[in-house]
Amino acid sequence: MGKRYLFTPGPTPVPPEVLAAVGAPVIHHRSPEFLPVYERVLTRLRDVCRTENDVLLFGSSGTGAFESAVANLVSPGEPHLVVSAGSFGDRWVAMTTAYGADVDVLRYAWGETPDADDLRARLREREAKVVWLVHSETSTGVVADVQALAAAAKEAGALVVVDAVSSLGAVPCETDAWGLDVVVAGSQKALMCPPGLGLAAVSEAALGATGSSPRFYFDWERTRKAQQTLDAPVTLPVSLVTGLDVALGLLFEEGLEAAFERHVRLGRAARAGVKALGLELFSPDEDRSAVVTAVRTPNGFDATDVVKGVRDRFGMTIANGQGEFKGKIFRLGHIGWFDVFDITTQLAAVEIVLADLGADVERGVAVTAALEAFETQPVS
Amino acid sequence: MGKRYLFTPGPTPVPPEVLAAVGAPVIHHRSPEFLPVYERVLTRLRDVCRTENDVLLFGSSGTGAFESAVANLVSPGEPHLVVSAGSFGDRWVAMTTAYGADVDVLRYAWGETPDADDLRARLREREAKVVWLVHSETSTGVVADVQALAAAAKEAGALVVVDAVSSLGAVPCETDAWGLDVVVAGSQKALMCPPGLGLAAVSEAALGATGSSPRFYFDWERTRKAQQTLDAPVTLPVSLVTGLDVALGLLFEEGLEAAFERHVRLGRAARAGVKALGLELFSPDEDRSAVVTAVRTPNGFDATDVVKGVRDRFGMTIANGQGEFKGKIFRLGHIGWFDVFDITTQLAAVEIVLADLGADVERGVAVTAALEAFETQPVS
Repeated sequence: MGKRYLFTPGPTPVPPEVLAAVGAPVIHHRSPEFLPVYERVLTRLRDVCRTENDVLLFGSSGTGAFESAVANLVSPGEPHLVVSAGSFGDRWVAMTTAYGADVDVLRYAWGETPDADDLRARLREREAKVVWLVHSETSTGVVADVQALAAAAKEAGALVVVDAVSSLGAVPCETDAWGLDVVVAGSQKALMCPPGLGLAAVSEAALGATGSSPRFYFDWERTRKAQQTLDAPVTLPVSLVTGLDVALGLLFEEGLEAAFERHVRLGRAARAGVKALGLELFSPDEDRSAVVTAVRTPNGFDATDVVKGVRDRFGMTIANGQGEFKGKIFRLGHIGWFDVFDITTQLAAVEIVLADLGADVERGVAVTAALEAFETQPVS
Repeated sequence: MGKRYLFTPGPTPVPPEVLAAVGAPVIHHRSPEFLPVYERVLTRLRDVCRTENDVLLFGSSGTGAFESAVANLVSPGEPHLVVSAGSFGDRWVAMTTAYGADVDVLRYAWGETPDADDLRARLREREAKVVWLVHSETSTGVVADVQALAAAAKEAGALVVVDAVSSLGAVPCETDAWGLDVVVAGSQKALMCPPGLGLAAVSEAALGATGSSPRFYFDWERTRKAQQTLDAPVTLPVSLVTGLDVALGLLFEEGLEAAFERHVRLGRAARAGVKALGLELFSPDEDRSAVVTAVRTPNGFDATDVVKGVRDRFGMTIANGQGEFKGKIFRLGHIGWFDVFDITTQLAAVEIVLADLGADVERGVAVTAALEAFETQPVS
């Protein structure tokens, strides 16, 4: 029968209503049919980002949204500071370096959680035009305390840019309340759409600090001006925008706070199941890290075999570790269109595969532990 | 009932088989399910471009593919020459200028056809690192003789970059045989897909001539290296790539030469119908310009009323003129998934709307004229 399960932390599963919209006949990006869709998406993106600022929409992956921030804010030779504790922090380093910034890196080991006091101290040593942050480091499962980090950056007079690709819509990201100048994200994570749309919420301060690097496709001012009259600057991926409109409708039907609570409970369920199996968590055992749960493979076993095992036997796609953690950890996604049974299904499959590989896992308890943990209500 | 017709020269109508693939459940961009799709698409794109070179695929509009060429080939201060006879030629000017090139423009009035001898003369006056061409100038309906233009550029030692966004798959574009160093295109024209994918066929000479402008998302070398192992450099818009795979399958089922012939006959049908109505063609009355047929509105009438009329009365989207030709011309698209009845439907609707506006059009003959013209076989 070949039933398939997509459980990676991006792309994520897409609800059938959204798929139907994505597969609907194409309409013109400047037609009266599309303009209300475009307008509603831009408004709802502001609501998701919790901002009064414009949210600029690009036909690109999340990396394209990253580049919009770098291309607009970095001029060669300027001092910039990246906080990196994983693969996506390193992407900020690679990209700001490619644009000629004088890049300082506050670097943590993969899996560590960045600390606001460390940032404060580093900014006392050297000023930075922009502090580049990662909200949810998808490579490790750590969700940083962006509110505290942003406050430290603001004290030093720096602009704050946040990669919220895998966090936006899953965990709170208060763009305006936390003073985030730029928040970038993509369509294919908690926004429950296929990949292909990038977005950037951009403050007036950021728009006033744009630099000399050449740009056209990702130029903020050009895009913003076009959006103000709903006159798309280029041919937008209308199918994906139409899908995003439906997906954001579903998200607001649930309610953003309810979605955040659900992700907290999904994270609790995943961690409880992992612990019941007798496995060691790589990502933090805390409510904030509710996006992806990273698990250490037992000593002597290779995460690649786990990933391959659930794929070959059950048609299930989960994520391996990245970089030097490939083979050492596997990652259970719970971003976006997930309920608790997507967690129990992952746990049950991993349990069978690890046991058959000969690993010493506790049998028959993980699913129940996950279901019980899911029932506990968040306090906040 | 609200039946709708998309007749613009991009986005273009998408076959239902392609829509079904686009709306299928999302698969992971590095999964064993996706890799054969990705590989087949990359191979078929080489076949469509008639090249042995790599075709690089980006999650972007056609403008993003433009930018990949500019960002990789332009360094500040270098001499470049753009041949412009319309909106998309002007886009090359805007973009190469944004990247700091010293841009010379061989400029024609909108609607004129660029001439290889003019280019030859201009290149004798001043050398250029790259000559930037437009194959099908969608704003005017002119398809340039890129083979002759490229030969002139090559004689002067320049690299040749071609915007083939609206021509690729509709009219012959012989990348290798004509010595085109870079051919850029998008998914949403004759490739019969929704917008959201850009592509660039890139020669070894072009790869060897990359410059100092900063880039990451559109970097050729990074993308090429990743494609060689099918390890997508970013999260690709998998839904659109899967759709493109199906669409390219349909195109090769028809056969590329057969598709070119069909477009020639569609263009003949459109022009014959327009002339039978007693209207004046804006685009050339020649087989090569087989992509979009631009028509002058009769004196005293506004093309905007024609576009609005067919939309409001018949749910039909055709294109207005762009720039200073807005209101003066309207454009009948026939790129991609079109047969002759899509032409006769456009003609019939335009005939009714113009007559009701009070224009002096010949009634009752355009559809038949178009059908007859469609039957004449191309000689080549």
